[in-house]
Amino acid sequence: MATNKQWIYARKPNAQVGPGNFDLREAAMPQPKDGEVLVRTTLLSLDPASRAWMQGQTYRSQLNPGDVMAGWGLGEVVESKAPGFVPGDLVSADYGWQQYAALPGRALTKHDKAHKPEHILGVLGITGLTAYFGLLDVGRPRPGETVLVSGAAGAVGSIAGQIAKLMGCRVVGTTRADKCQWLVDELGFDAAVDYTAGNLVGAIKAACPRGVDVYFDNTGGEVLGAALNRMNVWGRVACCGAVANYDTATPSGGPAGVPGFLVTKRIRMEGFVVMDFYARRREAETALATWVEQGKIKAPVDVVEGFDKMPEALAGMFAGKNRGKLMVRV
Amino acid sequence: MATNKQWIYARKPNAQVGPGNFDLREAAMPQPKDGEVLVRTTLLSLDPASRAWMQGQTYRSQLNPGDVMAGWGLGEVVESKAPGFVPGDLVSADYGWQQYAALPGRALTKHDKAHKPEHILGVLGITGLTAYFGLLDVGRPRPGETVLVSGAAGAVGSIAGQIAKLMGCRVVGTTRADKCQWLVDELGFDAAVDYTAGNLVGAIKAACPRGVDVYFDNTGGEVLGAALNRMNVWGRVACCGAVANYDTATPSGGPAGVPGFLVTKRIRMEGFVVMDFYARRREAETALATWVEQGKIKAPVDVVEGFDKMPEALAGMFAGKNRGKLMVRV
Repeated sequence: MATNKQWIYARKPNAQVGPGNFDLREAAMPQPKDGEVLVRTTLLSLDPASRAWMQGQTYRSQLNPGDVMAGWGLGEVVESKAPGFVPGDLVSADYGWQQYAALPGRALTKHDKAHKPEHILGVLGITGLTAYFGLLDVGRPRPGETVLVSGAAGAVGSIAGQIAKLMGCRVVGTTRADKCQWLVDELGFDAAVDYTAGNLVGAIKAACPRGVDVYFDNTGGEVLGAALNRMNVWGRVACCGAVANYDTATPSGGPAGVPGFLVTKRIRMEGFVVMDFYARRREAETALATWVEQGKIKAPVDVVEGFDKMPEALAGMFAGKNRGKLMVRV
Repeated sequence: MATNKQWIYARKPNAQVGPGNFDLREAAMPQPKDGEVLVRTTLLSLDPASRAWMQGQTYRSQLNPGDVMAGWGLGEVVESKAPGFVPGDLVSADYGWQQYAALPGRALTKHDKAHKPEHILGVLGITGLTAYFGLLDVGRPRPGETVLVSGAAGAVGSIAGQIAKLMGCRVVGTTRADKCQWLVDELGFDAAVDYTAGNLVGAIKAACPRGVDVYFDNTGGEVLGAALNRMNVWGRVACCGAVANYDTATPSGGPAGVPGFLVTKRIRMEGFVVMDFYARRREAETALATWVEQGKIKAPVDVVEGFDKMPEALAGMFAGKNRGKLMVRV
């Protein structure tokens, strides 16, 4: 009988996450109960938030050692005991890091096979929705304004920056040195800042000569501090994540400009979680699919081959290796 | 010929402000030009922001040593060369710390003598407007929610807390030990927290058993950090000021919960400056005057007698001596 390979979250990381924090296990093939669907996973998404789930409670309950590692993915229905699903359907859910999962039908979202699977999991999925709602509903850029995006070469940042460009903004991204040119040449950013090169305030000032109106924050930490310094009156910060603080034993302190700059520059800083916008997902999916189809937005994907590579791929993300949406083909 | 006593901002404070930072000067009586009004100041307001103006640029240009110290006040028209003003009119403006000022008519606001002068400068003036718009427009409390106010025994905090109470909220204030009972007994707060007693997170947790929905922040610093820790999902922080960071050589770092708590709890943190709401001031003045008249809001004032006491009074504010709105009778 076939078995189900699973990556178990085995040991809490003290600092940087790596293969040592996970164990590979062969479990019995799950059996769907009434109302459930058995899915074979085909693509698993890797997200900075995965690291936060290992550390403590976030917007979802904390993962505990011994749990199957959590994670979103795409799969194919193998067997269905739930109305509305038949074998062969393309479905997404929080499957966890495993080859098979049995889940209630209501936990699954069915997808149109006309789209590329990598896009369903990326620009048309949680990633794209996060960029779309975070930028437009939380950041609210207006044409002519300057939008700064941190983690701009990452899955969410690369899409958020391109949407801001479509809105008629000047768009600047922060990333590592080796990805700066790519942001400008491939994704159409107006400028890129290497956040590792020092003097961040000066570099942002040079790249944003009219100041920053909207800052889409994927990182927190030093880039957030420098962005607050360069923000204009009535600026907005869309707080999407704090990747600078996830994968380290020594999270940076909060930015010294809080609350001083917030008061004097009337800045609105607002956190969001994409699931809060889920009721409006069709709006975002339609917009994003249209932009991708029309070639107005590129949806870079970074696909690692092989389920065995899951932990390495996650560690690589925090080392800044990926360009665009990182996923593993199971 | 009569002279005009002025307090000059003479030396930039290195840490805590005190009489040593100011010089008393006797200047010539100002002569109003065409379009100007000569005013004799009667009550001068002392505000935490005064300290920030001495330190650097804020929402107004920085004060420089040699300038007359800036500050809002109430006065009586002595001579008018501007249409719409006659001797005896009660007017307010940014006169600075001096006995007489000549200002263009458009810089002055005329007041109804039916109100107490202390109220015009306090609850019906900038102070009350700050509390009203900051709480209602930025914090947006809903009945049944818990509102936490820092600097709650101060001018703005004491009014903000009472408005929140009128809105049907549970209201908790932070202040020094000697003013806790006063907040509860005199101003009707549900509970008060002594922020100097240690374990702020625990104390706020005990006083706000259902968490904090709106935090009206007058202080920044440690209270802000602890408040973010205890905030509920969808919480709002109205950033009014950062008095914990004004009068010190070593401002605290930013709160470590930024941006982590903002993301996971979808917190909106927003700074404001009361002048941005000035077009709507009649709305606030009417509401505040009605509440004061009906006895629904108390407007505590702390009046120091004598123009010579200006610097001492300002230092006393940062030592936490005042209860309610601090002003000096010239």
